[in-house]
Amino acid sequence: MERTLIKDTLTKIGEKVSLAGWVNTKRDHGKITFIDLRDRSGIVQVVGQGSSLSVGAEWVIEVEGVVKKRPENLVNPNIETGMVEVEAQDIRVLSKAAELPFDMGKPDLDLGLPTLLDFRPLTLRNQKINSIFKIQEVVIDSFRRALKEKDFFEFQAPVFIPEVAEGGAEVFKVPYFDHEVYLSQSPQLYKQILVGAYERVFSVNKTLRAEPSMTTRHLTEVTTLDAEFGFIDSYLDVKEMAEYTIKYMLNAVEKECGDILKKFNATVPKFTDSIPMIKLREAQEIIFKRTGRDNRQEPDLQPEDEREICKWSLEEKGSDLIFISHYPTKKRPFYTYQDPEDPDYTMSFDLLGRGTEWMTGGRRINDYDILLKMAKERDVDPKKLELYLQAFKFGMPPEGGFSFGSERVTMHILGLANIREASLFPRDMERVDIRLSLLEKPNKKVK
Amino acid sequence: MERTLIKDTLTKIGEKVSLAGWVNTKRDHGKITFIDLRDRSGIVQVVGQGSSLSVGAEWVIEVEGVVKKRPENLVNPNIETGMVEVEAQDIRVLSKAAELPFDMGKPDLDLGLPTLLDFRPLTLRNQKINSIFKIQEVVIDSFRRALKEKDFFEFQAPVFIPEVAEGGAEVFKVPYFDHEVYLSQSPQLYKQILVGAYERVFSVNKTLRAEPSMTTRHLTEVTTLDAEFGFIDSYLDVKEMAEYTIKYMLNAVEKECGDILKKFNATVPKFTDSIPMIKLREAQEIIFKRTGRDNRQEPDLQPEDEREICKWSLEEKGSDLIFISHYPTKKRPFYTYQDPEDPDYTMSFDLLGRGTEWMTGGRRINDYDILLKMAKERDVDPKKLELYLQAFKFGMPPEGGFSFGSERVTMHILGLANIREASLFPRDMERVDIRLSLLEKPNKKVK
Repeated sequence: MERTLIKDTLTKIGEKVSLAGWVNTKRDHGKITFIDLRDRSGIVQVVGQGSSLSVGAEWVIEVEGVVKKRPENLVNPNIETGMVEVEAQDIRVLSKAAELPFDMGKPDLDLGLPTLLDFRPLTLRNQKINSIFKIQEVVIDSFRRALKEKDFFEFQAPVFIPEVAEGGAEVFKVPYFDHEVYLSQSPQLYKQILVGAYERVFSVNKTLRAEPSMTTRHLTEVTTLDAEFGFIDSYLDVKEMAEYTIKYMLNAVEKECGDILKKFNATVPKFTDSIPMIKLREAQEIIFKRTGRDNRQEPDLQPEDEREICKWSLEEKGSDLIFISHYPTKKRPFYTYQDPEDPDYTMSFDLLGRGTEWMTGGRRINDYDILLKMAKERDVDPKKLELYLQAFKFGMPPEGGFSFGSERVTMHILGLANIREASLFPRDMERVDIRLSLLEKPNKKVK
Repeated sequence: MERTLIKDTLTKIGEKVSLAGWVNTKRDHGKITFIDLRDRSGIVQVVGQGSSLSVGAEWVIEVEGVVKKRPENLVNPNIETGMVEVEAQDIRVLSKAAELPFDMGKPDLDLGLPTLLDFRPLTLRNQKINSIFKIQEVVIDSFRRALKEKDFFEFQAPVFIPEVAEGGAEVFKVPYFDHEVYLSQSPQLYKQILVGAYERVFSVNKTLRAEPSMTTRHLTEVTTLDAEFGFIDSYLDVKEMAEYTIKYMLNAVEKECGDILKKFNATVPKFTDSIPMIKLREAQEIIFKRTGRDNRQEPDLQPEDEREICKWSLEEKGSDLIFISHYPTKKRPFYTYQDPEDPDYTMSFDLLGRGTEWMTGGRRINDYDILLKMAKERDVDPKKLELYLQAFKFGMPPEGGFSFGSERVTMHILGLANIREASLFPRDMERVDIRLSLLEKPNKKVK
């Protein structure tokens, strides 16, 4: 008999169906037993005679039975199929499960992060945890759809890179045959190179960063959403494309994941027709006026400043999202385009939302001579940029782009407390699936 | 004035347009100069007065002018816009280009692979080379679309993995804070874990393999397309899903990339309604009968066997594609499902096409006890499989899956001679963008 997905039982009242899934919970009432059966589409109550039901939590079973409408007073409003139940006629075990290390039956698994991650294969089966990554799937997929609609080309960014022009301690080095290569921290240089070949490009890629901190915001491996495009008139074209993209993504999440948002008591950020954009110095002035905190000489916003300017944006502009532009030249990468009217500041921006950074972007320098000059001024070795510089040496239009972290966007849409919750298999300095402290130390030769 | 894409000039005869792009070629005929202008949509001929045209190859320019229909005898059948040309009124330089290291004006860049890769930012601008990755984009995107239509969940597979249960010399080790981790060679274990949470999953991911060979088929970094799903009845369900997926992909390439296929004088492989599937031993018997080559005891097909059986499939079955099933148990990974009627052989398969392997797949062991037993028999340390084994310990349905290499599929559709041509930035033991031999050796301490 062909399998029916659980959500489709709603349309099969009175019919015989064959279901398959996991025993989410089992309640034994003597002669009669209730099983909440779970498959990828939902949960439904199965009712069976005691004798046929020697199954336990997380066992995988097939159930043949008849879909019945529940009496009004027995409808369960907490599950989508709460109007019906399935009267089991036959139950077949596909796979047994060992006794669980903790109760999986509750909608919220309050186990603490270490246990949630130590038992990831199991805790991902919890419907609420499971659905975090359905939001992430839509975040990533809608990013792609948004840019495909604008004629962008999707490329696969490399993980191995030859040398790190800008240096920095937070790069992973990999012994590579007789040599040594690095792991990519960003496809920035590649996406710019590809503007020379495809004009408009985007990439869903891995950012690998030797982040030596255990904050709630940092992982060593994240999935980044990058876009870059040419033939712009100014950085405002980049802001506009970034704005279109984030709106597209948030609209997709709202439209396609309404039930999940409800589960988390979350809403997508409010935004206005044109998301407000102010300069860093303006933001600092506003913060000074509102709080008396004088960070007007600082080259960046502190976390408390980010929260304050988001508060201001919501109160004064009705937008949870706000662009901050014109960060100081010396705090941005060498390829960032300077404001011709004030070269100490760049035509770059961050998008802040709900008190923290969501995206960074801006216009880049497309003139080969200026790019070379800026690299040298910043002690970036042009020899390590050879491939990158080629793209500009042989004709590059005015261009710019932007970059999101998919985990951060997911985290901030759902209001998660820790970015680890927004990663299927989070990696940090202490954990790569297992806790690294449990591993033997590598022998010296290899390290 | 708003930019018109070059391909749209065809619908704007008699109108004034503003174009922007690169100078593909320039032909100076004294008072009159012809420029082939290239943007992401195509190439068009621009005609201008000599004086206004001090531009060179790969310069980025904006052209304002009027679209004219060409006289019948001057139509250029080699470009899509060959019916028209644009009479330039104004040309503005957006970016100059240095003198090119080679002539980029020819449709085919016969420079040899080393030069093609040494100048990747430039050679990717060649329309034919450029279009290889549009095929690859459709290969990858149609893989996603095919599986989304079957209710599969897309996940992001990790790059860092804790330990390599199956060992093998071809894994990259990475110093990781005080420890050591590895780079993923396959999301196999993760996709199986996720069947326990999502039932049907797929992933576009990076496979990183310390491949110490310089063949035309191997890279150290490739983009792999992986799928896995539960609640199957047998390995035939896996074959069916794999077959559906490859057909979907090939149909998409044929439908969406007809012009590119033509450029390469390529066609997608012929396939039949049901792609033939035979057992390895049957294939070897057929090869023996056809060629007298007796490899009937071998555990795998040799390259010449793969070519021969593909030849047979096309001649006898009318299909460029053929599944070979029932590889010997000892040659497949420990998790491969054995044929209950003959446990020396597995319910796994490869898909061969045009003489070589395209995909590998099969049913997996979903019973925890058997999986554990098989791991031990094969000297796979269960302690290194802890997270993976959890997924099976706590209830896993019968399941299976398959895996493609996106570069291989692209290569074999277009008939490219070397897999490096099917990678935007190919990495092998000798090259990571630049030739590694040009780098200083790392100091001993780090290696």
